[in-house]
Amino acid sequence: MATTLAKSHLDILNEALEAGQLQQVRRLLNVSLKPADVAHLLESSPPRERSVLWSLVDQENEGEVLQYLSDDLQETFLSEMNAEELVAALEHIDIDDIADMLQNLPSTLTAEVLRSMDQQDRERLEQVLSYPEDTAGGLMNTDTITVRPDISVDTVLRYLRRHDEIPSMTDSIFVVSRKDAFIGVLPLAKILVSDPEMMVREVMDTDAITISADTPDTEVAKLFERHDLVSAPVVDPESKLLLGRITIDDVVDVIREDAEHSMMSMAGLDDDEDTFAPALKTTKRRAVWLGINLITAFIASAVIGIFEATIQQVVALAVLMPIVASMGGIAGSQALTLIIRGQALGQVERSNAGWLLNRELIVGSLNGILWAIVIGIAAILWFEDTTIGIVIGAAIVINLIAAALAGTLLPVLLKAWNIDPALAGSVILTTITDVVGFMSFLGLATLFYA
Amino acid sequence: MATTLAKSHLDILNEALEAGQLQQVRRLLNVSLKPADVAHLLESSPPRERSVLWSLVDQENEGEVLQYLSDDLQETFLSEMNAEELVAALEHIDIDDIADMLQNLPSTLTAEVLRSMDQQDRERLEQVLSYPEDTAGGLMNTDTITVRPDISVDTVLRYLRRHDEIPSMTDSIFVVSRKDAFIGVLPLAKILVSDPEMMVREVMDTDAITISADTPDTEVAKLFERHDLVSAPVVDPESKLLLGRITIDDVVDVIREDAEHSMMSMAGLDDDEDTFAPALKTTKRRAVWLGINLITAFIASAVIGIFEATIQQVVALAVLMPIVASMGGIAGSQALTLIIRGQALGQVERSNAGWLLNRELIVGSLNGILWAIVIGIAAILWFEDTTIGIVIGAAIVINLIAAALAGTLLPVLLKAWNIDPALAGSVILTTITDVVGFMSFLGLATLFYA
Repeated sequence: MATTLAKSHLDILNEALEAGQLQQVRRLLNVSLKPADVAHLLESSPPRERSVLWSLVDQENEGEVLQYLSDDLQETFLSEMNAEELVAALEHIDIDDIADMLQNLPSTLTAEVLRSMDQQDRERLEQVLSYPEDTAGGLMNTDTITVRPDISVDTVLRYLRRHDEIPSMTDSIFVVSRKDAFIGVLPLAKILVSDPEMMVREVMDTDAITISADTPDTEVAKLFERHDLVSAPVVDPESKLLLGRITIDDVVDVIREDAEHSMMSMAGLDDDEDTFAPALKTTKRRAVWLGINLITAFIASAVIGIFEATIQQVVALAVLMPIVASMGGIAGSQALTLIIRGQALGQVERSNAGWLLNRELIVGSLNGILWAIVIGIAAILWFEDTTIGIVIGAAIVINLIAAALAGTLLPVLLKAWNIDPALAGSVILTTITDVVGFMSFLGLATLFYA
Repeated sequence: MATTLAKSHLDILNEALEAGQLQQVRRLLNVSLKPADVAHLLESSPPRERSVLWSLVDQENEGEVLQYLSDDLQETFLSEMNAEELVAALEHIDIDDIADMLQNLPSTLTAEVLRSMDQQDRERLEQVLSYPEDTAGGLMNTDTITVRPDISVDTVLRYLRRHDEIPSMTDSIFVVSRKDAFIGVLPLAKILVSDPEMMVREVMDTDAITISADTPDTEVAKLFERHDLVSAPVVDPESKLLLGRITIDDVVDVIREDAEHSMMSMAGLDDDEDTFAPALKTTKRRAVWLGINLITAFIASAVIGIFEATIQQVVALAVLMPIVASMGGIAGSQALTLIIRGQALGQVERSNAGWLLNRELIVGSLNGILWAIVIGIAAILWFEDTTIGIVIGAAIVINLIAAALAGTLLPVLLKAWNIDPALAGSVILTTITDVVGFMSFLGLATLFYA
């Protein structure tokens, strides 16, 4: 049914908007569509349509829609709300999602929201807010169902039946001591197949993965991926008290952001960048990246400038020099991308980086020799000049080896220095392959043609 | 506990391997570590260590480890096994995971595996294999638990208790007709809170998301992400019979591969590329990409070649020309990356591509003017020549607008032509920004200096 869901909704919506049928749009947004779909429509709309759509979302649905929006867009909408609207919107939202949103708000608004909550919720929210957004503590929710180990499965069944509803994404409840220390996990599936006479202590799983509240969110994502978890208990790093739980829906967001982060950063974009951000905001953000890359370009130009006299003598050098720089850039970015992905997956450590460097050097040398021959022959045929073929061939080999070195070592070194390799890596790599490329090609030419 | 899990295991393992303590390594691999962790260790190891480790994994654990490996690596190991070993390894593996692995095997081995199974499993496996790997049908598992609508919750409870174990990732069982037509979803959580006297018909959810077997896997991932699903029923596109179910653990793999696909493709890498592939294999794969990019580079050189005479006259042009090409390349790849990500998230459709093009043109013009002024002034000061400043400024504006056009239109057009924008986009983009950059800069210079 749902394959072309969003597309057709987008079209229906656009038609209704254009025809001015706002009542129909309102019904679509508040009755027919789920909050996640509304959020997707908002993210897929240019600013003007977006504010019209948002104004048509009923206040009681705003909170649910907000939690599915990217940070960038959440911030835009939240910043336009006053404290009262905010409190109303957040009324039915999970603690962890409220915490997520509050992290982007001025503290006066945060205080207002906290004041509006009952004491238990406030304490829970304050606890979640006390952890950084990108740790297990910031990701957790506090809607755990807990039982004691010394009751029977039948008692658990009766206890659960007293609930109107079990929180979504609950595949297990947690077993805790009288003092709330975490003891084990009791999967719902286990409850259902166990003899009701048995004690919780006998059927619970004490070997389950527990997550310390200070674990970085990317590590949490790896644990969920590797151990096929739906939910996992979060415990205090020291006391081992049960603090809350993390559910796969929030982890999926981390996995997607994590995986997108590298690609977006390599282009100098924020991973949470709003696709439909207004022109002026986009211009400013992009300008910064262009400025940084301009420095790289000027450094490359300065290198070329050293060899002005040689170029004047042999203009073919100017014609061919971009080939040397470009082949180095491509080869380097292949190594760089592979290592950055390996780092993101937790595969590349210091202990195996040496093997990778060695492999990349072999690959760089082999491809260097292969393409040196191809490009060298092409250059000789083009300019009817053997010297230029030898010079460009040698420069290609040198630059592809430099590219292998830089592409492998840069991400490892940058990570060790706590600099994001995806963000800084490609700029520095280009600088290196440009400089080495122009320097070796024009430098060798200067020697050969002198 | 688990934050530094993999790292320390990798280190422990490496130490034990180096010390030749193979018994200790074997115990680690088969007793202490979970299959997913063993798979991660294998993926983080160079070829030689990898085969030693693999040989130490006990046969009964091989299947479980295999299913966590990337396709590239799975294929390597599977191709070394004979039919008998294969059958033994796959004995305790889920149907969907077996199907995944078989898709990479020669059909003689597939036949052998099918022959070894009992009839029910064979039929199920054949059904999963009948769908392409990247559809809901290829992703589904057949381990569903089904009930009829006209029984009581209490009967369901007693029926479930007859199971030794409920399959992992079961958050709901499915309600089907006598003829196996899908009727509704019965969440375990609902079973637990409902009055046992009630009928399944009264408590089941008939509004739940169902997935047609021919839905592409990326669409399945979007449904899971947007609707926070743990599992979902897969139905036949026509008959609406229940075929199986998809669980979030398999979807998470799709989400990660999907998100990584763009980044890897943009660097001409396969998204399933083995980080520790041997040098020769890597060299071959990379050579193809370098060759394609060499064509781009030669086209750019040919453009420069047209203006040899002008460069001979004004060598400063050779010094500055990489700046024009590079700024265009950076600006274009920012637009390209943003649109490709938007496409992957399902945000960019034909209906809103026009707005994006318009926005990018404004951004390109504004950044073009800004950096034209900066670069123009820098060029005038450097070469004490006003003309060169004007020429490079104009070329920057032209190239940044061309970059905006190409960066936005390319992915939209390529997608419409069913060509992967992430793979082809960056090569074509670079060709355009190089050609336009050199052409406008050197062309204008030829006019001005004539």
